[in-house]
Amino acid sequence: MATLKVPAIVPAPEEDAAQLRKAFVGLGTDEEAIVKILAHRNATQRRLIREAYTAAYGQDLLKDMEKEISGDFLRALAMWTLDPAERDARLANEATKMLTANNYVLLEIGCTRSSYHHFKVRETYHLLHKKSLEEDVAHHTSGDYRKLLVPLVSAFRYEGGETNLTLAKSEAKILHEKITGKAYRDDEIIRILTTRSKPQLNATLNQYNDVFGNPITKDLKSDPNDEYLRFLRATIKCLTSPEKYFEKVLRVAIKGAGTDENALTRVVVTQAEDSLHRIKEEYLKRNSIPLEQAIAGDTSGDYKNVLDALLGKEG
Amino acid sequence: MATLKVPAIVPAPEEDAAQLRKAFVGLGTDEEAIVKILAHRNATQRRLIREAYTAAYGQDLLKDMEKEISGDFLRALAMWTLDPAERDARLANEATKMLTANNYVLLEIGCTRSSYHHFKVRETYHLLHKKSLEEDVAHHTSGDYRKLLVPLVSAFRYEGGETNLTLAKSEAKILHEKITGKAYRDDEIIRILTTRSKPQLNATLNQYNDVFGNPITKDLKSDPNDEYLRFLRATIKCLTSPEKYFEKVLRVAIKGAGTDENALTRVVVTQAEDSLHRIKEEYLKRNSIPLEQAIAGDTSGDYKNVLDALLGKEG
Repeated sequence: MATLKVPAIVPAPEEDAAQLRKAFVGLGTDEEAIVKILAHRNATQRRLIREAYTAAYGQDLLKDMEKEISGDFLRALAMWTLDPAERDARLANEATKMLTANNYVLLEIGCTRSSYHHFKVRETYHLLHKKSLEEDVAHHTSGDYRKLLVPLVSAFRYEGGETNLTLAKSEAKILHEKITGKAYRDDEIIRILTTRSKPQLNATLNQYNDVFGNPITKDLKSDPNDEYLRFLRATIKCLTSPEKYFEKVLRVAIKGAGTDENALTRVVVTQAEDSLHRIKEEYLKRNSIPLEQAIAGDTSGDYKNVLDALLGKEG
Repeated sequence: MATLKVPAIVPAPEEDAAQLRKAFVGLGTDEEAIVKILAHRNATQRRLIREAYTAAYGQDLLKDMEKEISGDFLRALAMWTLDPAERDARLANEATKMLTANNYVLLEIGCTRSSYHHFKVRETYHLLHKKSLEEDVAHHTSGDYRKLLVPLVSAFRYEGGETNLTLAKSEAKILHEKITGKAYRDDEIIRILTTRSKPQLNATLNQYNDVFGNPITKDLKSDPNDEYLRFLRATIKCLTSPEKYFEKVLRVAIKGAGTDENALTRVVVTQAEDSLHRIKEEYLKRNSIPLEQAIAGDTSGDYKNVLDALLGKEG
């Protein structure tokens, strides 16, 4: 469930574009007005505003935005303004670059989006980067991570709800055999995780739990220092309980002295029109304080305001 | 280039449907009329005829066809009548079944179709088989074949013409190192073949030839009995010279005492609206007899007539 709050009466895109222009030009920038508009419009409305802005002023809204604001506030607002498929294509590309490499971002994009959205990301990736997503992922990863990530970002998973219990039983057995034998990198584990539909995978992991007495993620915790095992557990979480996965990303981003603004921004921005409501529930359950309150302790100013708006504060 | 011949004036789909109905019903079937219509209509026209047929007679054209004709003639005509993406989805599914398993069919579908057509095949696969293409391919293959085939059928290759010469040089070197070390199953060979755009792959293989003195397919012939090496060479041919690959499939299907009607039908039917013209040129060059003449020696009757029509004979 989404957290985004769109007002009951939304101005015409031309009117929103004019207000944004006004907020940008002249001395000083009206950050409040910018948040009030953009952080309270859905993806279609934002696309129409961007089009109206270019039509009226001959400039790209995002380019003008970059001249007026900066830092975490800019990154959050610019990422939010982008079309969701373009946003994911840009995030994925960034995640394959040496200095900003991040296998977890690729994992999220491969596992928590719908099959059709994911295909739109791959299409947009061609247009923006003149290459394919899987080509860059394969080129910039190696070994075990490549073996897992390339099929994850290349999958077009079936999304029907049908499940096959016989198959679930036999594949739960395969998973258990491999895990018991510590063959965590076995092709069969990768095959099952990267190709089966999410409902089928759920059925298999339920069988695993029922027949062998432990959730699979517990059996994959044999060595807490094994980074690949951590990645494998995250893969399973992304596929079966994305809101729990995202809760943990937020928890880790906020906790301790520093804040991981990139992770915080990414989860809030990509999930505000998707599962952020459920993620907030998970966060409260796990941490006993509301997510907004936790974020308030770690952020401030315009950046805090845009996150607040996306977390569901009325405009 | 296509070989299909569509008449200058095409009857309305309703008229074609009525003529087909007439050819089916009553005593005896008018095979000649069926070929005259269906084997001289393009994919859009055939789709409209199927729709008009269902609208007028409340039956699926293909189901009625199955009642009236049989054998190789039926298979050729039914496969031809199908929408190209549906045809490929059905061929691919058949190729993952135990009794009709055929890795070469999967290879063709993964490598010789355009990226968008291939995605349509994956979409149609969901609808028809309630699973994903890559899921079935991964489940029904193993070892080296799985490692190569799953990414081939999951790829959404970039189709722009840009090539990067520096990359071509470095990847030609990687390929040569692996091949010289007989590491034919190395992940890097698979990565390059399964993810790079076809123009980029061409540039890389040209570099290979120029710098190391042999075409890569020659260096992959070290052991003529290694089935996997044969498959690797076929992969490269499918990606870089599909018409040469298909010429060979036809040559092998025709030569000797028996005929491989399935292969013959598959190549003619899937390529008649695509590259069959170029395949015929390759065939003549390599075998010194026209493909039509070679096929005439191996086929007869209605089956021969439908192949003739698809090979370019006027209706």
